[in-house]
Amino acid sequence: MAKDMTLFWGSGSPPCWRVLIALEEKNLQGYNSKMLSFEKGEHKSKEVMEVNPRGQLPAFKDGNTIINESYGICMYLEDKYKTKGNKLIPECPSEMAMMYQRMFEGLTLFQKMAHSLFYTRFVPEGERHDSAQERNRAELKDEIQRWEGYLKHNFLAGDHFSLADVIVFPVIAFLFRFGLCEEKFPKLATYHNALKERPSIKASWPPTWNDGPGMDSLKNL
Amino acid sequence: MAKDMTLFWGSGSPPCWRVLIALEEKNLQGYNSKMLSFEKGEHKSKEVMEVNPRGQLPAFKDGNTIINESYGICMYLEDKYKTKGNKLIPECPSEMAMMYQRMFEGLTLFQKMAHSLFYTRFVPEGERHDSAQERNRAELKDEIQRWEGYLKHNFLAGDHFSLADVIVFPVIAFLFRFGLCEEKFPKLATYHNALKERPSIKASWPPTWNDGPGMDSLKNL
Repeated sequence: MAKDMTLFWGSGSPPCWRVLIALEEKNLQGYNSKMLSFEKGEHKSKEVMEVNPRGQLPAFKDGNTIINESYGICMYLEDKYKTKGNKLIPECPSEMAMMYQRMFEGLTLFQKMAHSLFYTRFVPEGERHDSAQERNRAELKDEIQRWEGYLKHNFLAGDHFSLADVIVFPVIAFLFRFGLCEEKFPKLATYHNALKERPSIKASWPPTWNDGPGMDSLKNL
Repeated sequence: MAKDMTLFWGSGSPPCWRVLIALEEKNLQGYNSKMLSFEKGEHKSKEVMEVNPRGQLPAFKDGNTIINESYGICMYLEDKYKTKGNKLIPECPSEMAMMYQRMFEGLTLFQKMAHSLFYTRFVPEGERHDSAQERNRAELKDEIQRWEGYLKHNFLAGDHFSLADVIVFPVIAFLFRFGLCEEKFPKLATYHNALKERPSIKASWPPTWNDGPGMDSLKNL
């Protein structure tokens, strides 16, 4: 089953990383794993474009079935392989509601992170404004503060690891990789450090992150 | 069951509308429906903030369970009320994959629509650039063209109505409300006009849209 799957991915990208984690959690090791370089533009290569015409990573095939949206891949793997590996959607409706709530709020966290950290990548030089950069940074800080307040249990949706963690953990790890201060966000730091030890996350840790230290863009946030 | 639910929503908002459609499809009529006005700032009222601290609509309660993210509410309703009303997630894995793919690509369509149509709402006056507005409009056009190409069947994920339609139809209807040209996007127009007649969509049609004509911002796209 896993041998019929192919995943194209890039190191450190939260959308790619969540798929790597989901595949580990569902015990689907043995798939064809193709790590590509964003820097070299390999996400625009012919082999990727054939699977994902948007030229984005992740790009994923399961036999003849193609699905590229990272949230969608995680949902698909959980639905199709319900009884394999770890169950990632709680049965209790109130826990399930919390899981979906955090999972989709994760889109906002990711978006605010991208707006702040990658402002100069997304906004052409002549259109940049310090006021926008400051606002984006302030909004990111408010958003992270919100998540710090959410963490009252061991995991994002309560006492059990769920799809909310699969999907949002990579974003939180990314924030720390960019220098987020552990002392200012102690609950997020505890969560981050605990999950680092989880087998699925250890097995999928971004290989390029082992080469050297991260950035300090968020150090003083 | 439905009588224990409360939905705060705003007319015409795609995130709100998809929840209204999902409730109809799952035969959950009879919930407490509270239409609020964005113009009057009612989404920031105390009764909303108590349910959704982000001060956004939709805000939704099912008994003591709160869930506010529109994608999450739809998933939750489908999961919790699997055997009630219409089944919205196909069992066949390849159809399911297509459904998730379109459903999550819908986020990009919505985002590109918002960036173009609501540019002046989101970007403060001193930070606006014609070049950005033109780029946003071009990106929206490319994105709509992509969806025009997707429509090879009656519904977004194939031959059956699914969560992809629940979630993305309101965005497509919004585009036509803002003047999208039926002749230039004939497949989207056929889809839009066919789904208008679906009972769940008729029952949830934005009440404020009955008051008068839409805008023509997208007429020449």
